[in-house]
Amino acid sequence: MKCRICKEKAVIKIRRHNLPLCRKHFIERFESETRRVIKRYKMFTRNDKIAVAVSGGKDSLSLLYCLNKLGYNVTGIYINLGIFKENYSANSQEYVIKFKEKFNLPVIIYDIKENQGKGIEDLLKRGRGEKPCSVCGMVKRYLMNRLAIEEGCNVVATGHNLDDEASRLFGNIIYWQEEHIEHQFPVLPEENGLLKKVKPFTFFTEKETSLYAILNGIPYIRDECPYSIGAKTIKYKEILNKLENDSPGTKYRFLKGFYEFKNKVKIENLRSFKGTKNCKKCGMPTTREICTFCMAFENHPFIKSVQNISISEKE
Amino acid sequence: MKCRICKEKAVIKIRRHNLPLCRKHFIERFESETRRVIKRYKMFTRNDKIAVAVSGGKDSLSLLYCLNKLGYNVTGIYINLGIFKENYSANSQEYVIKFKEKFNLPVIIYDIKENQGKGIEDLLKRGRGEKPCSVCGMVKRYLMNRLAIEEGCNVVATGHNLDDEASRLFGNIIYWQEEHIEHQFPVLPEENGLLKKVKPFTFFTEKETSLYAILNGIPYIRDECPYSIGAKTIKYKEILNKLENDSPGTKYRFLKGFYEFKNKVKIENLRSFKGTKNCKKCGMPTTREICTFCMAFENHPFIKSVQNISISEKE
Repeated sequence: MKCRICKEKAVIKIRRHNLPLCRKHFIERFESETRRVIKRYKMFTRNDKIAVAVSGGKDSLSLLYCLNKLGYNVTGIYINLGIFKENYSANSQEYVIKFKEKFNLPVIIYDIKENQGKGIEDLLKRGRGEKPCSVCGMVKRYLMNRLAIEEGCNVVATGHNLDDEASRLFGNIIYWQEEHIEHQFPVLPEENGLLKKVKPFTFFTEKETSLYAILNGIPYIRDECPYSIGAKTIKYKEILNKLENDSPGTKYRFLKGFYEFKNKVKIENLRSFKGTKNCKKCGMPTTREICTFCMAFENHPFIKSVQNISISEKE
Repeated sequence: MKCRICKEKAVIKIRRHNLPLCRKHFIERFESETRRVIKRYKMFTRNDKIAVAVSGGKDSLSLLYCLNKLGYNVTGIYINLGIFKENYSANSQEYVIKFKEKFNLPVIIYDIKENQGKGIEDLLKRGRGEKPCSVCGMVKRYLMNRLAIEEGCNVVATGHNLDDEASRLFGNIIYWQEEHIEHQFPVLPEENGLLKKVKPFTFFTEKETSLYAILNGIPYIRDECPYSIGAKTIKYKEILNKLENDSPGTKYRFLKGFYEFKNKVKIENLRSFKGTKNCKKCGMPTTREICTFCMAFENHPFIKSVQNISISEKE
């Protein structure tokens, strides 16, 4: 199999375009596509300061690497969640440190157990049987936003890829989760204390982001979080992979078609879960008196310096 | 397993309600649910004359039987499509005749090959590799509408069940087929020469409609059309059955959620395939000079008596 452009040995075939590419041309295309998506969805410019949420995995580390290479002002933020099962947090942190040292890129490391007194596993133990992924998601969304504000960033970028987004969409649509359908888009604007959120890799498959990481010598953790086993998104990924296999391009068309559809429909009277109040403890937007994050960590000190923060402080 | 209502032996458990029912209470519930859906979606009243599209299968024959029992003014219309493979059309017609004689209900039998000079297989042979189901669907939609008008009916009812509608929705959404998404609803209003179309069984599973047919001694063809093998809708049904199995009620929530979502969104600027012209040969709505049906049967006589029909003629 030879590269369509230069006839050198191909390292991948982009199946939905039936396009074989060599190392050099794959990387070139990957980076120009990333820039195109950033511009197309008005994600950010070189004047913005971007917090890249890194987990130690292929997607987020590739994103930090790629955005830096494209000349954007980036800072990685890694949250050690305190997952001791299978040594998961410690292992992923190790990869982040390796990455940071190898490429000499700024990455903040925040240890939740050290700073908040509790890790994810403590929350799960004391919880009421909540699903691990939903607790973890809440904690990550909250902290990433606050830490990014603390770092003076005005955008949060995450490494979600096509497989993530398509399976998430699949789950939202099978059950018509209106609020989530409304909030699924490659870019979500800043509002009421929540920074703008963007997903520049939304149209790359898992295979493409892994290959980009490998070709650039990015060290990353291969293991999945031990708590994600049996998660519905994994089941949905399997279904989508089967459909993709029968008909290449299915995942892309499913997600892209949804974004286009969303632009054409006007959604009215949907249930909303946007916070209209501000948490009495930390000042972040919430639908109740005390936000879910503060409730979960009750009786523990909050992130220092970000108490009573308001939107103007980060501008 | 005992009936939740009378403690007699149950014949089915409605999984999404975890509700076991005996023969009598299943039939009662099936019929009252049918009536409820008809009223909820304002499908028709006892003053309407309803054409029920019958195929010889469990769904359509059950629908004709059930609507008649509920006191509606119904006429069955059966189209012999000229499918000679596996003797499919002849077999299905036989079941329709058995049904008609057993219950003494009015059913019109229309033989497409006799009246139009060509059957589906002739169209496929001379076609340009169109998919059988799409040619057949076009012919059935067209003829059912015209024959219903000829019979003086003002509504066309079809036996589509939850499995059909959920898998159709699945296919439309995986590829965001806007026109089809816009047109998928339990009731479509009359417009420009197309009668009102309704699907009273839209929330019953295949299992429920089969059981209703069996319990009422309705003879029906068990075979699937030989041309539907490998159809995508069958693949989608398998996926939905798997999800349903893991989580009972998934299909219902998926379809019902979609109908509710549709009521909340305003769809703007969607591509439309509604006919704005009238076919120069048969007068039916079309997007071109000559409609697809007439194109397919070119050089063959059209249905007598319905030439140049206009909306007012059927009122």
